[in-house]
Amino acid sequence: MLETLLYWIDLAGVAVFALSGALTAARKHMDIFGFVLIATVTGIGGGTLRDLLLGLTPVFWVKEPVYVAITCGVALLGFLTAHLVEYRYRLLLWADAVGLSVFCLLGAEAALAAGVSPGIAVVMGLMSAAFGGLVRDILCAETPLILRKEIYATAAVLGAAVYVGLAQLGLERPWCLLAGFLAAFLLRALALLKGLSLPIYDRRPARVYDDLGKPPPR
Amino acid sequence: MLETLLYWIDLAGVAVFALSGALTAARKHMDIFGFVLIATVTGIGGGTLRDLLLGLTPVFWVKEPVYVAITCGVALLGFLTAHLVEYRYRLLLWADAVGLSVFCLLGAEAALAAGVSPGIAVVMGLMSAAFGGLVRDILCAETPLILRKEIYATAAVLGAAVYVGLAQLGLERPWCLLAGFLAAFLLRALALLKGLSLPIYDRRPARVYDDLGKPPPR
Amino acid sequence: MLETLLYWIDLAGVAVFALSGALTAARKHMDIFGFVLIATVTGIGGGTLRDLLLGLTPVFWVKEPVYVAITCGVALLGFLTAHLVEYRYRLLLWADAVGLSVFCLLGAEAALAAGVSPGIAVVMGLMSAAFGGLVRDILCAETPLILRKEIYATAAVLGAAVYVGLAQLGLERPWCLLAGFLAAFLLRALALLKGLSLPIYDRRPARVYDDLGKPPPR
Repeated sequence: MLETLLYWIDLAGVAVFALSGALTAARKHMDIFGFVLIATVTGIGGGTLRDLLLGLTPVFWVKEPVYVAITCGVALLGFLTAHLVEYRYRLLLWADAVGLSVFCLLGAEAALAAGVSPGIAVVMGLMSAAFGGLVRDILCAETPLILRKEIYATAAVLGAAVYVGLAQLGLERPWCLLAGFLAAFLLRALALLKGLSLPIYDRRPARVYDDLGKPPPR
Repeated sequence: MLETLLYWIDLAGVAVFALSGALTAARKHMDIFGFVLIATVTGIGGGTLRDLLLGLTPVFWVKEPVYVAITCGVALLGFLTAHLVEYRYRLLLWADAVGLSVFCLLGAEAALAAGVSPGIAVVMGLMSAAFGGLVRDILCAETPLILRKEIYATAAVLGAAVYVGLAQLGLERPWCLLAGFLAAFLLRALALLKGLSLPIYDRRPARVYDDLGKPPPR
Repeated sequence: MLETLLYWIDLAGVAVFALSGALTAARKHMDIFGFVLIATVTGIGGGTLRDLLLGLTPVFWVKEPVYVAITCGVALLGFLTAHLVEYRYRLLLWADAVGLSVFCLLGAEAALAAGVSPGIAVVMGLMSAAFGGLVRDILCAETPLILRKEIYATAAVLGAAVYVGLAQLGLERPWCLLAGFLAAFLLRALALLKGLSLPIYDRRPARVYDDLGKPPPR
């Protein structure tokens, strides 16, 4: 039952992340294989890292090819229909937000199931959620969303922490999932709608003359 | 017998990919250690990713140090002789093409041997073939070949698909390898000689004003 | 006894690498989560790659959450105090140098303990030492220290080689560690203080017109 629920949520998360990848490929005017590549890497990247770090190999999509079929299908759909979307980048951001909110829970759940401590489960949630989008942005030479000033990683950490915390308290998993998803998604949505951000470090600019750490000439 | 054949093909593939790495290092005026690093990462990167994803650890070059000896030797040779090559970038592209055509087969073969489904074997062939060159280009700050407009990943997918398809039909492995290699190499060669490419997505340029996905001010 | 010594050295190495990450985050004016992310990736990245390649999963910090606690603590400390450091980039370089000198030994030691050959142990030492800083620099869009002209990777190789060589000769481990650390750190320190570098490949510049490897038009 929980298994089935997690499975469908996982498929949905892979699909929306793949969509964000396909939309990024559209921004970069790639060919159909570029769409497939970026959608696939974005969709399965986070879960792959999670499986590698936990030692759950072969990784999930090797055992269950349906995941790759989904990302290829989404890539093809994106290639054919991306021009119909009025605000492509906005859709990209929201698809990424849903994927982020889903994978922070699934990463934490997989880690708990593998028997790790709660704190590490939260870290694993963050990594699962952020890695796919990070590789997407590096491959496409976009500024990674995780490094932009609006709240991003914080939302994944919050969602994973809410999920792990409630699960530790013994709440039934479906409710933990719902609460975790809402926590992550609402925070990220606020960040997107209001430009919400954490205070940045701005007490002193980087020097430009310190290549070897030497003081500047006078 | 097949084992021996695959082993020698693997060594050859590592060597040509290492050569493409050494030539990239020459373009970037690196020191001898830069050559060793880039040649090694390019030569063994794809196989390392394949082993990690399939759970075949420790990875192949930890068990068989000869691979690292080869990449170091090729790097040294490249450092000493790269200036003798008249069209260095052309040689780089062709070495990469041979490596691509070899590793798409070996990745698929390793995946089949590990018992995965045919579709995943093709994906694993693509990843083995493309990853080493991708890391080479990211480390050297070159535009990844896989993201340029000429056919690249498509050739690796074709080679792996021909190999897996014929192997599924029961053809003897050496013939499958030959057919797969020719399919991948000829397609990539056509792409290089004729500038052959897949149609790209160009229906609407990316907007510049959509940082948070907001519509533009009027 | 050796176990305990290695454990404390490892914690110290993670802490100084995390510090170099936090200082890079300060240069880039990140928020507190950026500090945590970069410090953590830098601190545990090298050891994570080592564990993945050797097949020692789940990776070390999943089993021992204290490592992540350390990187988070260092990140917080860095966020609060980085503006007090007069030459931030110089401190970053020296923290990185200490981390480099520590992790080349620990990577080699872990590889020897896993039963690999001496040459591969040196390679693993280099990878453990260089990977965290490489990911830090890629994420922060800085030129990777490993690709700059001053000696960097060479110091890690020297330290690992000295350690592995002396260990093969039967010297007691604490002395091997001390000798390896001094070899790596002194060479890197010389490189930083004197701008010491290996000869680079500069026999012929890269051509600008060779996009598909074609000769230039006349």
